[in-house]
Amino acid sequence: MAEQHRVAINTQGRGSLEITGEIAAIVRNATVDAGIAHVFVRHTSCGLAITENADASVRRDLETLMQRWAPDGDPAYRHDLEGDDDMAAHARSLLTGVSLSVPFADSRLLLGTWQGIYLFEHRARGHRRELIVTLTG
Amino acid sequence: MAEQHRVAINTQGRGSLEITGEIAAIVRNATVDAGIAHVFVRHTSCGLAITENADASVRRDLETLMQRWAPDGDPAYRHDLEGDDDMAAHARSLLTGVSLSVPFADSRLLLGTWQGIYLFEHRARGHRRELIVTLTG
Amino acid sequence: MAEQHRVAINTQGRGSLEITGEIAAIVRNATVDAGIAHVFVRHTSCGLAITENADASVRRDLETLMQRWAPDGDPAYRHDLEGDDDMAAHARSLLTGVSLSVPFADSRLLLGTWQGIYLFEHRARGHRRELIVTLTG
Repeated sequence: MAEQHRVAINTQGRGSLEITGEIAAIVRNATVDAGIAHVFVRHTSCGLAITENADASVRRDLETLMQRWAPDGDPAYRHDLEGDDDMAAHARSLLTGVSLSVPFADSRLLLGTWQGIYLFEHRARGHRRELIVTLTG
Repeated sequence: MAEQHRVAINTQGRGSLEITGEIAAIVRNATVDAGIAHVFVRHTSCGLAITENADASVRRDLETLMQRWAPDGDPAYRHDLEGDDDMAAHARSLLTGVSLSVPFADSRLLLGTWQGIYLFEHRARGHRRELIVTLTG
Repeated sequence: MAEQHRVAINTQGRGSLEITGEIAAIVRNATVDAGIAHVFVRHTSCGLAITENADASVRRDLETLMQRWAPDGDPAYRHDLEGDDDMAAHARSLLTGVSLSVPFADSRLLLGTWQGIYLFEHRARGHRRELIVTLTG
């Protein structure tokens, strides 16, 4: 039987927030001890990704690249009602994706040493973001 | 026990088709009432993504950006047997991905208000696309 | 009950390695005969993707595009301790993702005719890469 949890995270504007600890705690306290932890954000202007957890400059450089891949305020955008970051946020969300999944065993995530789970806020301002964590075993 | 369904979708050429209704119907009629709905396309020149469902200009702007990320008929491509859109379609498919997964509970998808599930046809012409929907609980 | 396997793959430096056979063998010998095969790499500088398996020029062209999306040795990078390919590898890993999942039934992967599963080594030199394969049914 799948086990589901709702988690709310308040972001402080564009940037990444590590949520590895939150997901690891859910796995540690679950009744199922091996399987897949699936994390899903219920939004289209933020995203989830696994990336390097040791040197914060990796995430700064990812920000530099995302600004190239989907520039804020690009003159070609038609969807700009909520500002320069509006369409850019949807495009970044497409590239990072709104869900990820990590295997676990013995009630522990099987992440590699240098892997962290991050919520990427793609909007300029902070938002309350709802996540659904589902464990299947 | 996983429950699996095959769905065929006829696309009309490059662009996005909302398939939220098809996936929601499978979840509504399933024997398992909570878990993960996994959607997979059996092709390498189309893709699946969750994005904004309210303003169609978001998907027009995504098309504009995808054309930059993987231009049709780029002179650097060596794989061009089926035309200018051939390699571009494979590259777009890599970026959007060929599968996605959404949690469900009480026989309903736990999508956010503004999230829709879309099949992106990346080829210029329409194709018959086969999807596999798997529910695990 | 989920079934989990650890697989180690030695890469020969940047490029893609087909691992469809390894995943198919695990599915064929599993006790669960229908569900989802989830593949995860425990690293942040390589990735997994499903793409065309017939013409190797597709993967050469993907390499050309990845070099544009995340150029080696870009002067904007701050994370460059391990060389020109260091930050580029993390960025490519973000774009391709570090996990993928494929439905299976009757102990066979439900891949399309032209789909192959590939491990993309994004670093210039070869590495020993650890994968976790989890089957849920």
